[in-house]
Amino acid sequence: MGKRKKQHLDRVVQQLINIVGEREVLYLKEDLIAYECDGYTMAKGMPRAVVFVKSKEHVVEVVKCLNKEKIPYIARGAGTGLSGGATPLGGEVIISLVRMKRMLHLDLENRKAVVEPGYINLKLTQSISDKGYYYAPDPSSQYACTIGGNVAENSGGAHCLKYGVTTNHILGLEIVLPNGEIMEIGADGIPDQPGYDLLGLLTGSEGTLGIVTKITVKILKNPQGKKTVLAYYDDITDASQAVSDIISAGIIPAALEMMDAIAIEGVEAAAYPVGHPQDIAAFLLIEVDGIAAGIDDQIDEILTVCKRNNVREVKVARDEAERALWWANRKMGFGAMGAISPDYLVQDGVIPRTRLPEVLDQIAAISKRYELRIANIFHAGDGNLHPLILYDASVPGESERAAKAGSECLKVCADVGGSITGEHGVGIEKSAEMRFIFSDEEMAAQTDIRTVFNPEDILNPGKLFPQPGRCVEVKQEMKKVEV
Amino acid sequence: MGKRKKQHLDRVVQQLINIVGEREVLYLKEDLIAYECDGYTMAKGMPRAVVFVKSKEHVVEVVKCLNKEKIPYIARGAGTGLSGGATPLGGEVIISLVRMKRMLHLDLENRKAVVEPGYINLKLTQSISDKGYYYAPDPSSQYACTIGGNVAENSGGAHCLKYGVTTNHILGLEIVLPNGEIMEIGADGIPDQPGYDLLGLLTGSEGTLGIVTKITVKILKNPQGKKTVLAYYDDITDASQAVSDIISAGIIPAALEMMDAIAIEGVEAAAYPVGHPQDIAAFLLIEVDGIAAGIDDQIDEILTVCKRNNVREVKVARDEAERALWWANRKMGFGAMGAISPDYLVQDGVIPRTRLPEVLDQIAAISKRYELRIANIFHAGDGNLHPLILYDASVPGESERAAKAGSECLKVCADVGGSITGEHGVGIEKSAEMRFIFSDEEMAAQTDIRTVFNPEDILNPGKLFPQPGRCVEVKQEMKKVEV
Repeated sequence: MGKRKKQHLDRVVQQLINIVGEREVLYLKEDLIAYECDGYTMAKGMPRAVVFVKSKEHVVEVVKCLNKEKIPYIARGAGTGLSGGATPLGGEVIISLVRMKRMLHLDLENRKAVVEPGYINLKLTQSISDKGYYYAPDPSSQYACTIGGNVAENSGGAHCLKYGVTTNHILGLEIVLPNGEIMEIGADGIPDQPGYDLLGLLTGSEGTLGIVTKITVKILKNPQGKKTVLAYYDDITDASQAVSDIISAGIIPAALEMMDAIAIEGVEAAAYPVGHPQDIAAFLLIEVDGIAAGIDDQIDEILTVCKRNNVREVKVARDEAERALWWANRKMGFGAMGAISPDYLVQDGVIPRTRLPEVLDQIAAISKRYELRIANIFHAGDGNLHPLILYDASVPGESERAAKAGSECLKVCADVGGSITGEHGVGIEKSAEMRFIFSDEEMAAQTDIRTVFNPEDILNPGKLFPQPGRCVEVKQEMKKVEV
Repeated sequence: MGKRKKQHLDRVVQQLINIVGEREVLYLKEDLIAYECDGYTMAKGMPRAVVFVKSKEHVVEVVKCLNKEKIPYIARGAGTGLSGGATPLGGEVIISLVRMKRMLHLDLENRKAVVEPGYINLKLTQSISDKGYYYAPDPSSQYACTIGGNVAENSGGAHCLKYGVTTNHILGLEIVLPNGEIMEIGADGIPDQPGYDLLGLLTGSEGTLGIVTKITVKILKNPQGKKTVLAYYDDITDASQAVSDIISAGIIPAALEMMDAIAIEGVEAAAYPVGHPQDIAAFLLIEVDGIAAGIDDQIDEILTVCKRNNVREVKVARDEAERALWWANRKMGFGAMGAISPDYLVQDGVIPRTRLPEVLDQIAAISKRYELRIANIFHAGDGNLHPLILYDASVPGESERAAKAGSECLKVCADVGGSITGEHGVGIEKSAEMRFIFSDEEMAAQTDIRTVFNPEDILNPGKLFPQPGRCVEVKQEMKKVEV
């Protein structure tokens, strides 16, 4: 927590200290600065305080106190979110769930685990892998992000093509509602829950409906076998056609990833270079898993499809070490941009797979128009495209240009029948872009649902939906950018 | 529509005729009698009229008219539902969607089809199977039930173990809300929809939130291969252990079904007898599909597991004809009860797979206590148990005993950590049993959501949630039973 000067504490901070103890509340500016934003750094706001809770009882007491004082609040996990879902507008209390990090129960026979929201994603797989099990959703930040945060954002990952995003792996939740009531939803792997699907509604609600205090997740048996293919292409249209042909062949790879030339330049400059050729247009990283006997046939078919589509070179990982290196290289994708650009903005659009070549053409045009390089990382199998807009925040006006270029990329995705987010959420970043895909009535149906759970909009205000006067706010956010 | 005597029409009926034409409205008692209930026959109520709509514009006009007149209404598909979701309490107008039965769009490349709500489930697979595709959710009533009804009830089927229930196959919906507004939700296969998951919320909402007028569904590529195993057991605990061992081996069969001795007696007396031994305790029907090369290995492992668990006889279907016969026999399961009992009540509980033997013991005790035979059909892989309570409605008091026995079976399921419905919905039938699994607060969160969409509770009233004064209503429903 660092040192603190004694000073006159505000009334709210004092009440929070009374609940959780003095060491568990941050309120000095120097301590709060790390909480001005999450992984989306283009908007920042100073919280009033950060409170570290250790139990659902803490959450209930804190929530009741803040309701009484009419102070808005935000739940936060590891702060790795990419759309500003845990970023304050200014003046909120952040309820940090990182101390609630235990596994409460493990039931291998019925394939489930119960964890607290601050439990780290990767830790779950690490703790059960020796018994032959794993937890499927694997966001690239999985070494740090929390399962509570994954639930809030309905996080995806490279292997979601076959196994689905977080919502497909959540069996039950315990939630503290904004009125301080505790609600348990979901039950043990029931295919069709009676009543409305509250579990689905809460998952991905970006922290606007309640604070998750306990999560029951599915765990899966490790596949018997796994093989990984790397395919280099001189032409991105060929790579794109190979993706369509693999899916058309009836194969559902565990992962089917594409990176373009600028993205490859980035990952080769970062911690885990593979030695990809410097002059290719794109590579595909394709992984197949499942029953051992079926894998070789699928790999043969994938190799045939790659060759039919003018691949320059295609190879199968020789061993687990090579496979792990390819994945480490790929998973550096976002962070690696730091090696080739002072700043970058990750976008997160979705498009019909078959529209990729034309979408990339339009993104190239946006890049040219805004004079900013744009790399593309693509979960090609499910059409989830991440344009990475490279910019330099120290150059006046470049942050604003990057944000506008990002918004235009999303418009392109929406216009081809896609969407503005595949797995990163809407947060602060894309709330204005919700208008690209939802009418006022459709948005009203959603905000009416928020009102059921969060009638005063006191929990994570200003996220997910456009705010009245949003244009003004965008400008203000931009002014706040400090990198 | 039958002949109609000319008579003084009530004002509401006249307005409905003005919208859709005289031939599309039923209002005479002899015409309405078929609409007193759906596939759940223990509760009946007379509708005021039935109106056959042909377009979303019809739906909007009818809904606006009924809102103005404050007449409650119910959407209905084929009427094959098993929990009374489309059964009137009395006096509602039924909006029949069976004339909205077209396929509007088929896009094989992007694996989706757009259909109207009255489109019949099986027709979709039939219309694309020659091109190598199918629609996965396969309720036993699939030859008759509509996809609109499947969406309302979030229907399952024998192959949902591997492929998931209806909600996993819906990409988009067009809905007419109770205020007459049209809302489009969902988009093309986006893994994580922005905003709240309204698609999930609407799917399985049992016709209480809106009337679906257009549905975009996923279609799947036919698996390369498929093999089916039939295993006869002398002891249901052995069969049950075999189920657990198959799942523990990391195999996810496409289907994993169990039938007990009474259920087998039924299907052997019905249209598609297989010649199952008369003296076995249970059989398992296990199907594996996927990449051809992997199937034989999985079948070998399944045979080994069956033998290790004291199977009497186990065999693989010789050819497609034998496989089809086994499935036809299994899918007769519910209807076949008519061959061995004047009446039967289907229940639909969910239990943790590993608790099956003790649950069956308790169901046997309920059977004894109520002096009613109970057959058990079990989607064993996902723990979805269908006790079939055999009774004779012409014997005074037996219908009431059957209903009570059914409720007790659900209590057993809830008490072992399961649920009161796996795939048939709550409807009228199980609305009181919602209390077995939800607290008042949890139910209030759900009815508050209903209020967002359906504030006057004018759309399908009396379903899904317990009604005030429910005990009285149960009695009245029982009095209405006429078989």
